Amino acid sequence: MTAAARLTARARATNLQSFAGIRKGLALGLAATANEALANSRTVHEAGRERDFLTAVANLQSMTKADLEAVNAEILKRMQSPVSMIPELAGHLINAGGKRLRPMLTLASARLFHYQGADHVKLAAAVELIHGATLLHDDVVDQSALRRGASTANIIWGNKESVLVGDFIFARAFELMVEAKDLRVLKALSHASGVIAQGEVLQLTTQKNLSATFETYLQVVEAKTAALFAAATEVGGLISGRTREEEEAVRQFGLNFGVAYQLIDDALDYAGFEASLGKTVGDDFREGKMTAPVVFAVARAREHEKPFWRRTIADGDIRDGDFEQARDYIERDGAIEDTISCARDYADKALEAMASVPENEFSKALENLVVTSTARAV
Amino acid sequence: MTAAARLTARARATNLQSFAGIRKGLALGLAATANEALANSRTVHEAGRERDFLTAVANLQSMTKADLEAVNAEILKRMQSPVSMIPELAGHLINAGGKRLRPMLTLASARLFHYQGADHVKLAAAVELIHGATLLHDDVVDQSALRRGASTANIIWGNKESVLVGDFIFARAFELMVEAKDLRVLKALSHASGVIAQGEVLQLTTQKNLSATFETYLQVVEAKTAALFAAATEVGGLISGRTREEEEAVRQFGLNFGVAYQLIDDALDYAGFEASLGKTVGDDFREGKMTAPVVFAVARAREHEKPFWRRTIADGDIRDGDFEQARDYIERDGAIEDTISCARDYADKALEAMASVPENEFSKALENLVVTSTARAV
Repeated sequence: MTAAARLTARARATNLQSFAGIRKGLALGLAATANEALANSRTVHEAGRERDFLTAVANLQSMTKADLEAVNAEILKRMQSPVSMIPELAGHLINAGGKRLRPMLTLASARLFHYQGADHVKLAAAVELIHGATLLHDDVVDQSALRRGASTANIIWGNKESVLVGDFIFARAFELMVEAKDLRVLKALSHASGVIAQGEVLQLTTQKNLSATFETYLQVVEAKTAALFAAATEVGGLISGRTREEEEAVRQFGLNFGVAYQLIDDALDYAGFEASLGKTVGDDFREGKMTAPVVFAVARAREHEKPFWRRTIADGDIRDGDFEQARDYIERDGAIEDTISCARDYADKALEAMASVPENEFSKALENLVVTSTARAV
Repeated sequence: MTAAARLTARARATNLQSFAGIRKGLALGLAATANEALANSRTVHEAGRERDFLTAVANLQSMTKADLEAVNAEILKRMQSPVSMIPELAGHLINAGGKRLRPMLTLASARLFHYQGADHVKLAAAVELIHGATLLHDDVVDQSALRRGASTANIIWGNKESVLVGDFIFARAFELMVEAKDLRVLKALSHASGVIAQGEVLQLTTQKNLSATFETYLQVVEAKTAALFAAATEVGGLISGRTREEEEAVRQFGLNFGVAYQLIDDALDYAGFEASLGKTVGDDFREGKMTAPVVFAVARAREHEKPFWRRTIADGDIRDGDFEQARDYIERDGAIEDTISCARDYADKALEAMASVPENEFSKALENLVVTSTARAV
């Protein structure tokens, strides 16, 4: 059994175990109680596997601690501006407790290849800034009020401000990456930025559209999430001067991890506990997003249930109890199971890609991230 | 008398002549009549100097015809996407009859230096795309309904769509410029992008703020407009492998031309005729923008006039006849004259910068653009 296969097997087992937990919880109507327990407990993550994922994140954070601090300093420096609203708004976003997952991918990928230079820090910062700019614009587009448990910038400062500061952050990301003076890196990151925006537009055009397919949903996920994960890990390979095969391997790792990560995130929006996620569960439902759980549930809906989906998703007429009803349908039809199963397939591919790169503490930490993320608390 | 000094003298003469015309028209209350005459006439530009400016633009367009067609083809190609909304929305923006002023600056600057390669086309396209992305976001932020005589994308498609397609266009601009593989060019253009966004935020924070100074206004103009003009011309020098002095000269030309151009544009928003501008006169007033004419007029307002500016600009409570009243105050206090005079100073600097570059048909065409733009129909 290869290392990857072992990890995969572990992921499957953990997933199934975790998923059995949710099924049971939902079936018994325990969700609300569990949710309350979580909210009232100091050990909020003990109810699920979110803890394992956060431990894996913390592990990678501690392995890249010095680099990550340099990334944070670089980001802070780049957000300075005599126009005071810029550091204020950007600071709110950046200090809002993000996991720094994407920049860690770049740092870990570079370390995995024994990179000795200093450009990985700039590039990791650029990756996080591209992500940050996207979040600001996303929150405007989605009219979100809450992110990571805090009010969003568009609520505090306004939509106009978020749009323009987002543009500033995006431009600064490019300035930073240009400083690394590597044309292949620039190509990878600028291409990813275009793909992300294209994915965001595609997502917008499929919103409230009940005939959106799972294939279209996957295109959205690959573009809006996985493209940046892929570029983030690829960049670590590109600056390390490794073989084309190794560069492609880390890129494939990031790409497939990105899809898996987003699939789980979308499952959690229906099956997760708000307290442990730090975000508002049910946002996707309220926004009429055609994510995997809804795509599956709509496809399996009985004739008399279809008006429910038309009213809630297509017409956006959402009433008390609708989200719970949607969860029931999604649960009954195995839509969460299938979403997780699909995530697991992508996680497998991510782990398989790692067979072509050196095995060391960084490759293991990255693998562990994939394994635990597909088994997150649900 | 140097060539630049000659041109400057001509610019001053033309400006004064033209400005005498406006003063007269406004004083006699002829604006509405003249406006109607313009709208009903096939020779709409004959009433002013807009025609001379458009002739200078057309001249440069014809001198760079083949390149400009290649730029348009490149732009069209880069806006392709399987997500059909992207080429639709981008196509609307790009075909809406822009003058292609900024890409022409890059093309003419490269030609001026006898550039023989093909990268000027890609870079000119990138410059226009950065401009286009900015316009899309501007129109969302300003809630504009009309641009170049046509409905804006935010009105036709929506704000969300404009934000995300703007991001896509911006990312594609970066992809394009990366292909030119010149790190100094990338530095210039990515830096300009950050400066533009910073200028947009600064403009937003000064909006409706009656205490905004002329210095702050100039900072906004230098950032939101002149930075891209400067980068557009600088890039032509950078790719041509000329001396540092020549690169700096074309950059200074673009920078100062950009400020002059924006000052005149802002004057026209109070003194221009809608039909010849293809935009809604009075937009800046309705948006409470602290542009030069208002900054000057507010500073010179008599005590009993101050409540008018507070109500209209600061509170945004605009009633029938207010715009005409604002025009009267602005006219009476010489605020348009001073705005134009300031524009002329920047135009002088632009023309002086050209003393350090080869004199040929392209340098002359660029100079003519500056001269006629500061004498535009008002």
